[in-house]
Amino acid sequence: MEKETARIEGFSDGVFAIAVTLLVLELHIPTAENNDSASMLLHNLLAQWPSFLAFSLSFFSIFIMWVNHHKVFKQIYRRNSQLMFVNGLLLFLITCISYPTALLARYYGTSALSVATAIYTGLFVLINLTFNLLWRIASRNKELLRPEITETAIRKINRNYQYGIPVHITAFLLSFCCPTAALVLCAVLWTYWAVVSGRLELMANKTTISQ
Amino acid sequence: MEKETARIEGFSDGVFAIAVTLLVLELHIPTAENNDSASMLLHNLLAQWPSFLAFSLSFFSIFIMWVNHHKVFKQIYRRNSQLMFVNGLLLFLITCISYPTALLARYYGTSALSVATAIYTGLFVLINLTFNLLWRIASRNKELLRPEITETAIRKINRNYQYGIPVHITAFLLSFCCPTAALVLCAVLWTYWAVVSGRLELMANKTTISQ
Amino acid sequence: MEKETARIEGFSDGVFAIAVTLLVLELHIPTAENNDSASMLLHNLLAQWPSFLAFSLSFFSIFIMWVNHHKVFKQIYRRNSQLMFVNGLLLFLITCISYPTALLARYYGTSALSVATAIYTGLFVLINLTFNLLWRIASRNKELLRPEITETAIRKINRNYQYGIPVHITAFLLSFCCPTAALVLCAVLWTYWAVVSGRLELMANKTTISQ
Amino acid sequence: MEKETARIEGFSDGVFAIAVTLLVLELHIPTAENNDSASMLLHNLLAQWPSFLAFSLSFFSIFIMWVNHHKVFKQIYRRNSQLMFVNGLLLFLITCISYPTALLARYYGTSALSVATAIYTGLFVLINLTFNLLWRIASRNKELLRPEITETAIRKINRNYQYGIPVHITAFLLSFCCPTAALVLCAVLWTYWAVVSGRLELMANKTTISQ
Repeated sequence: MEKETARIEGFSDGVFAIAVTLLVLELHIPTAENNDSASMLLHNLLAQWPSFLAFSLSFFSIFIMWVNHHKVFKQIYRRNSQLMFVNGLLLFLITCISYPTALLARYYGTSALSVATAIYTGLFVLINLTFNLLWRIASRNKELLRPEITETAIRKINRNYQYGIPVHITAFLLSFCCPTAALVLCAVLWTYWAVVSGRLELMANKTTISQ
Repeated sequence: MEKETARIEGFSDGVFAIAVTLLVLELHIPTAENNDSASMLLHNLLAQWPSFLAFSLSFFSIFIMWVNHHKVFKQIYRRNSQLMFVNGLLLFLITCISYPTALLARYYGTSALSVATAIYTGLFVLINLTFNLLWRIASRNKELLRPEITETAIRKINRNYQYGIPVHITAFLLSFCCPTAALVLCAVLWTYWAVVSGRLELMANKTTISQ
Repeated sequence: MEKETARIEGFSDGVFAIAVTLLVLELHIPTAENNDSASMLLHNLLAQWPSFLAFSLSFFSIFIMWVNHHKVFKQIYRRNSQLMFVNGLLLFLITCISYPTALLARYYGTSALSVATAIYTGLFVLINLTFNLLWRIASRNKELLRPEITETAIRKINRNYQYGIPVHITAFLLSFCCPTAALVLCAVLWTYWAVVSGRLELMANKTTISQ
Repeated sequence: MEKETARIEGFSDGVFAIAVTLLVLELHIPTAENNDSASMLLHNLLAQWPSFLAFSLSFFSIFIMWVNHHKVFKQIYRRNSQLMFVNGLLLFLITCISYPTALLARYYGTSALSVATAIYTGLFVLINLTFNLLWRIASRNKELLRPEITETAIRKINRNYQYGIPVHITAFLLSFCCPTAALVLCAVLWTYWAVVSGRLELMANKTTISQ
């Protein structure tokens, strides 16, 4: 069976690639006059660390989303309109990430950080819900999936996805009392996903070989 | 017959993906000094709702254009120069959308809203005319189309397209007296298209199965 | 023989698509306070016409470059490093177009227009030289070309390319005494190319059929 | 064996294409009032030469990275998660290039140039380390590579890569005492790579023919 989703994947790759690259536009170089001495410039650059951190965090979160998108669409062979529009909603939310990233960078160290963090983590709750919905639409309807896919593989992806929602909701709730902890929790989850992603694949390869 | 339009589709996907992602650059985070308290930041963020709404409206309108573009080009197998240049004109107009979007966001709530809305809806009139022209060029010349396409399918797409022009002209005229109603009318049409798009596909699948 | 240039075309399409879409970022909406009345906004928008014109001119010039790139690479099947780096130089120059476009828009109506126009037309001289070089590298070495290509087709493309250089040099020289005439000359040439492009294709199709 | 890396290459091409094109956004046209005379505009444009130079340098460095990425991935047929995340890290660093480019352009001619140059060359040390790591992950695991690849080809790429690290470290160290020399060293290395790239390919073609 021919894969029908090539142009959706191409368009999504484009949006992911642009969203991830546009983040750098939020990094503004220090331009004060007194930066002209080396030590002052170094000092002002170091003072920008919340921007660099927010940029890096968002870059890797979008990258992990893309890796996930890639893995899910490897299993999807046909498309319907529901899938296209839920994918559109997902891309919309991915595009939005640069806004709360700029908020985080700007309000780090102020009492408004909790608001910025709540918007940031809240957005990731929505993204996880949408990813879940996308996979449910695809997996509910066997005709959309790769013909050789096994029930075990579907259940494994199911479990993997539902996992992200409670953690992001916890991060969202945490952001009102201790925003830094909420951000650390997100970073821990994303690192865990990156590591697990390697292990899942190892298993998938073993399964392919043993079949 | 080999599909000759791969590079046109790739280039168009690129322009659609960038146009839809660049919209977010028009969202500027509030940077006033007094935002450093959580309640002030929240208040200033909520005051930006026309920007968020204009951004969302334009995102989904471009996304629906892309879905349409995808559907039309699924039926086109060969290309000529006319098709390439009309497609170029379409991409030009799509690229322009971010400008009246910024106008809408900036002038919402002022007496200049009617001008901003007229430009926004007027642009969609032009986009619909160009889409119509693109499809006419393709469908007039059977050699350009997918060989197995039926007369019924062509007529169905024809009808679907001509429908968008009168509604957008109405929205354009409405924008001079009641701009908010004009924007609601656009949003209603786009939602209707998203829903109908699902139904058209269902029919198409049934037709394929019954043949 | 397999086409080896897919990734070069993909990368080039990306750069063309982004360069053409980024132009819109140079269109800034009028933000003066007194725009809040409809007539003032309309007046200020109309005063921006040099920006809109420069944007449109550059959009279609990049689009025509892309159509040309598409046509040349349809004939190229293998790549070498020289071809890759000359293509890189071409993409570099295409990326630069947004800068003199912004100059044109800003200095229209001032006595500095001649400088802006000279840079704009001078850039197109360089682009035409690079396109010429790209095609020479490809056509000198038959191994790089589509195996079935005929001598007539090569000569036709040759002639088509050498034509652009003298016209752009004339526009460059004209820009010092009458910049508006230089811009009109460019617009005329690009329109001519768009029309001829359709005719060339018609001939190519006839040749294919008669073979 | 089917190539499994198409979507990684597409996504990477997207990020490279956007990173290379976004650089132009750092070129700001001179907007002072007194530019309205031709000679003043010309004078102010010429005063921007550090921006143009930094832009050109970064454009070609990213382009050479892309050519390298292209060559490495031509040899990679399968992917694992490690490869995807190291590729993600590489894209992250590529995206960052626009920031020290803007620093270079802004602080050229001031005593803060050494800091700007150290960050610029330091970033290229990191990029070279990451490229090296990417190739090690791929070449360590023969299953990931193109089945027909020879030991000689692997060793040749190995040698080519390890070469970049000491030169960039030298440039990094040089940037503290004589930043201009550090930038010239980078430019020389990149030119050398561009030339060698042509020769490597010539050899590769000969090998292919002689086999």
